[in-house]
Amino acid sequence: MPPKIFLVGGLGTIGKRVTEAIRKQNDMDILGVGDIKRSRSFVNYTGQQLASEGVDLYALPDKMDLFREAEIDPTGTIQEGIEKADLVVDATPGGIGEKNKPKYEKAGVKTLFQGGESASVAEVAFNSFWNYDDAKGAQFVQVVSCNTTALCRIVYALKEFGVKRVRGVLVRRGGDPRQVNRGPINAIIPKHHIPSHHAEDVKRCIPDLNITTVALKVPTTLMHVHSLNLSLEERVTEGEIIEQMEDTTRIIVATEDIGNTAQIVEWARDMGRKRYDVPEVIVWPGTVKVEGNEAFISYAVHQESIVVPENIDAIRSVLEIEEDRDKSIKKTDNALNIRDKLTF
Amino acid sequence: MPPKIFLVGGLGTIGKRVTEAIRKQNDMDILGVGDIKRSRSFVNYTGQQLASEGVDLYALPDKMDLFREAEIDPTGTIQEGIEKADLVVDATPGGIGEKNKPKYEKAGVKTLFQGGESASVAEVAFNSFWNYDDAKGAQFVQVVSCNTTALCRIVYALKEFGVKRVRGVLVRRGGDPRQVNRGPINAIIPKHHIPSHHAEDVKRCIPDLNITTVALKVPTTLMHVHSLNLSLEERVTEGEIIEQMEDTTRIIVATEDIGNTAQIVEWARDMGRKRYDVPEVIVWPGTVKVEGNEAFISYAVHQESIVVPENIDAIRSVLEIEEDRDKSIKKTDNALNIRDKLTF
Amino acid sequence: MPPKIFLVGGLGTIGKRVTEAIRKQNDMDILGVGDIKRSRSFVNYTGQQLASEGVDLYALPDKMDLFREAEIDPTGTIQEGIEKADLVVDATPGGIGEKNKPKYEKAGVKTLFQGGESASVAEVAFNSFWNYDDAKGAQFVQVVSCNTTALCRIVYALKEFGVKRVRGVLVRRGGDPRQVNRGPINAIIPKHHIPSHHAEDVKRCIPDLNITTVALKVPTTLMHVHSLNLSLEERVTEGEIIEQMEDTTRIIVATEDIGNTAQIVEWARDMGRKRYDVPEVIVWPGTVKVEGNEAFISYAVHQESIVVPENIDAIRSVLEIEEDRDKSIKKTDNALNIRDKLTF
Amino acid sequence: MPPKIFLVGGLGTIGKRVTEAIRKQNDMDILGVGDIKRSRSFVNYTGQQLASEGVDLYALPDKMDLFREAEIDPTGTIQEGIEKADLVVDATPGGIGEKNKPKYEKAGVKTLFQGGESASVAEVAFNSFWNYDDAKGAQFVQVVSCNTTALCRIVYALKEFGVKRVRGVLVRRGGDPRQVNRGPINAIIPKHHIPSHHAEDVKRCIPDLNITTVALKVPTTLMHVHSLNLSLEERVTEGEIIEQMEDTTRIIVATEDIGNTAQIVEWARDMGRKRYDVPEVIVWPGTVKVEGNEAFISYAVHQESIVVPENIDAIRSVLEIEEDRDKSIKKTDNALNIRDKLTF
Repeated sequence: MPPKIFLVGGLGTIGKRVTEAIRKQNDMDILGVGDIKRSRSFVNYTGQQLASEGVDLYALPDKMDLFREAEIDPTGTIQEGIEKADLVVDATPGGIGEKNKPKYEKAGVKTLFQGGESASVAEVAFNSFWNYDDAKGAQFVQVVSCNTTALCRIVYALKEFGVKRVRGVLVRRGGDPRQVNRGPINAIIPKHHIPSHHAEDVKRCIPDLNITTVALKVPTTLMHVHSLNLSLEERVTEGEIIEQMEDTTRIIVATEDIGNTAQIVEWARDMGRKRYDVPEVIVWPGTVKVEGNEAFISYAVHQESIVVPENIDAIRSVLEIEEDRDKSIKKTDNALNIRDKLTF
Repeated sequence: MPPKIFLVGGLGTIGKRVTEAIRKQNDMDILGVGDIKRSRSFVNYTGQQLASEGVDLYALPDKMDLFREAEIDPTGTIQEGIEKADLVVDATPGGIGEKNKPKYEKAGVKTLFQGGESASVAEVAFNSFWNYDDAKGAQFVQVVSCNTTALCRIVYALKEFGVKRVRGVLVRRGGDPRQVNRGPINAIIPKHHIPSHHAEDVKRCIPDLNITTVALKVPTTLMHVHSLNLSLEERVTEGEIIEQMEDTTRIIVATEDIGNTAQIVEWARDMGRKRYDVPEVIVWPGTVKVEGNEAFISYAVHQESIVVPENIDAIRSVLEIEEDRDKSIKKTDNALNIRDKLTF
Repeated sequence: MPPKIFLVGGLGTIGKRVTEAIRKQNDMDILGVGDIKRSRSFVNYTGQQLASEGVDLYALPDKMDLFREAEIDPTGTIQEGIEKADLVVDATPGGIGEKNKPKYEKAGVKTLFQGGESASVAEVAFNSFWNYDDAKGAQFVQVVSCNTTALCRIVYALKEFGVKRVRGVLVRRGGDPRQVNRGPINAIIPKHHIPSHHAEDVKRCIPDLNITTVALKVPTTLMHVHSLNLSLEERVTEGEIIEQMEDTTRIIVATEDIGNTAQIVEWARDMGRKRYDVPEVIVWPGTVKVEGNEAFISYAVHQESIVVPENIDAIRSVLEIEEDRDKSIKKTDNALNIRDKLTF
Repeated sequence: MPPKIFLVGGLGTIGKRVTEAIRKQNDMDILGVGDIKRSRSFVNYTGQQLASEGVDLYALPDKMDLFREAEIDPTGTIQEGIEKADLVVDATPGGIGEKNKPKYEKAGVKTLFQGGESASVAEVAFNSFWNYDDAKGAQFVQVVSCNTTALCRIVYALKEFGVKRVRGVLVRRGGDPRQVNRGPINAIIPKHHIPSHHAEDVKRCIPDLNITTVALKVPTTLMHVHSLNLSLEERVTEGEIIEQMEDTTRIIVATEDIGNTAQIVEWARDMGRKRYDVPEVIVWPGTVKVEGNEAFISYAVHQESIVVPENIDAIRSVLEIEEDRDKSIKKTDNALNIRDKLTF
């Protein structure tokens, strides 16, 4: 019988996506979904949808009535869910996961945390390409953040050219589409600390990497954009870089025709992707440039969905469902219809 | 055999949606899709998708090669499509439809135009609720614009209360998500003409209505918001108004939990709607207020998709496929999964 | 000797403007400026500027060092400032003024509060045009908010036409330019309560007015825009309305050439106005329309500066410096170079 | 008698600022201001203001009446202005200057063009710090664009550390505040060409510089932000870099307290700067970081005003009013109150 996964914070941005992704795999099952802080509306919409599809919902003891008002009968308390699970995915907002950790320790349950937690939450920082094996059997594993995951994938694709140094400028979206209380409305906000935490996070996955990142925040909600400069050991052509990107799964080489973040979203909408999710990194070939041993590359990162496939792989690694990294990646990508090409 | 519909401008914002909607009906067929101005990318993505699903594409004589480069073999020229069709839906950008009209006249083909054209393009301005019968057998019919369609639906829902006067403020989005060249970035832009054209357009569908509209443009891409004040003949309660809205198809009564345009989009994404389309008008009950014989109401309008069901009904009326308005509306709504409730 | 005014919260958005405005009057003096929450930077820039111009600064006992670090020698504690003052202007952010009130009560000092406080903070809600006399000698007076002040002025200008009913849609900016933590970035957010508090606030100044307001928030920082519909007792022409606006101080009739909020700001920048402040309401004549006994009018409201002249008048009224409303208004307007025309 | 400068396009964004800046110098005079395309409103406001201050306005022969309607009596035609001038500053929008060039050639008048023109418009690309002497006596000189000017200043400040290589990411504003027709509203738009033209433009001023620039556009109107990585010959500390910035005029080292573009604008507004102009580059010390021989630095660039002092210096060089670069810079900076410090 496949292992049972319990989602804590399973109605939030990452939680609802990981829940759906788990349900598409055939080597793991959803035990149920717990959510502590969701308002009645979320119980209604995402929760009712999950419930209507047969997913069990778990509530805090004092929130049982809230669920019943929304005509959902909770299966049990979140604590009960934690105790019955083979693995917990904690998808709560940054900082909450760490506060929940004692419960997972007490229950002795293996747990995945998300990138918003501080690094101390887990011994292993996980990226599918770089350290799949390190998470095997670990109790606490952190799937790194959206920006960090994208950086790990790009560096992985260029690995064979010998990446000596990465200088990255991360132009971040101000908030997710639904986060209407976040700004800025009309400003550019630099991070007044270099390197930004992303470089440190990448090094937890790729220990020897020489990387420095600078971060800015701008008034958009759709996607982040990274602009990298890399010093490579080998002399390569732009064509070779693009070919590497094309050959790496979870990276799509776009064209100038979907040459900005709004057009990428339009493409995903046209493709009929649920929530227009783009878990792949989108590289623009017109931004790939080689000068001497330096390469430039810019790409877009969909902050809401990019970590979903990595969460699935991490479950397989931690529970030792699948020995082989490449096989896990392939299973995940097939189940989630993740591509390395734009075309049909 | 069901009548054959040909789309001109069928890869644009409205065209691609109407094409897909026609394919979901069982009393009409797509003959094919022609598009004059699309770049290679649109041929690639939307066009390839349609081609992969068996829809015939038609091109201008000098664009045949462009299609073949995208590995699509065009079925014929747009002119040939027009000549073979039982009805043409012209979904080109505002002003182009009028320029295409002589071709339709010459071919003697019945044609639907969109709301961006000037009123003189067609003898009938169409709204499903108000004048389904007027379009029967007409050669040229204009499906009115997104804002006008929303106004028609709301006034229809309140019809039985006796709508003596409508005062509307239309807060319009600056551009669609993909239109990155449109602003404003940081300003509010009023229309310096009252009434805005929307009031005139509504009166083409509801001749006796006493309505004045004021329009503003703001820096958002997701949806328009209308804020109406109506003088009613009857004294009603807020509950009665909300009940009428709940009982009218193509209008959904939301809750404060999806209380702004971003949260509506999030809801549609969670529901798995293609392109997060919301062809229903979304009314916020917290904005419904009665004072004496005046009622206030605010609601959101998804400019990209709201006119899709009206286009389908208009096809049925013009081609006299379906005698009865209510039956057409029901067929359309069932085929497109259009709701009058948020819940499952 | 002119009375001494003490500013609490005198380095914030309203406080710094009122401080400067007081200094331009010749019948009142600044005692000094206290600010509780300002960071070192504000002490540095606004504070240093004021200090360099000879304005005394007052600090909390435990913040004295912070000021000295910024090379400003505080004159005393804020408590001392309150005790020495003839009148306090509390320009702290909404909700703080009410918490400060016991200190003013204990010191027995007359105090002006701002529109962000709840209505219970003061017995008198002040607007220069409508109730100058009511504030005379009062201990606690509230100068109403930016939106309310604008509404009061417009209704005052139309008073002689007999304003029977006002229906207002207030399209509000999401945050001030410096408030980079405020959103939305890409949404329209309606207020789910009708009437919005603005109607109630207006009625505190104009008790018999029949007014209902609806409020929306949009992603811009520059100005609010109001769109009003008014039922008038008299039949008037658009020209008569515009003439009334032109004849009323603190209202400017613009042209379509500065036809949106960004162009108004550009005009104020070109005029060399400090901080591009526009304390006047800007009416667009192209949005003035009469239909029967109803009038439509739209105008822009600069949220950062519109209440400054009203604060000055309120000081004169409370301290009974000037018996006559019109004389106070004229003094204020002359000192602040406030206009009723765009031209030179 | 000081030389007479004629402004073509003198009522636009750069033109109006350069006109005012020239009037503050005591070694050059304004002959007058011509503007071809301005609408009546600009004639009214900026034009009336200039006229009211005694500046002569020149019009196209067929626009004379437009000026007279705005109660301005034009001194002559633009052609007459060109013929009488000692030097023309062409401040028309990009591409127009080149079209005007034959008129300047025919009149044999020395002319400054702006950065929006193509490089072929002039033999000399001008930056005050780098090539003041090259423009002496030249007929046609181009003052480089806002982004290029900022890059030139920063590289100049670091010159003595040996700048071996510059990698720059330029995060550009979508439009100026008044340009309400420009977007994007909600997207990040990369330039699909590397290097962006800015690198080429910088090399016209600093021929041996090894520089590559990448450009992105984001939905903001206030300022650009650049994020640079530089390889230096010398090992330096962050303190040394900051000290160089502090010691270089036209560069201000800010603090985290005015740590984003909105707060810089707020500071300039508080300082009472006309139009909140910030002709200085604003460097954030929290973004200065040294790693080995690489330095990181981010700074903000006010696109509307940064080239104004360079235009003044260019006039002095071309007309050989002032032999010495440093003396010209000092005159300009004193006259325009340009700083190298935030404090008073």
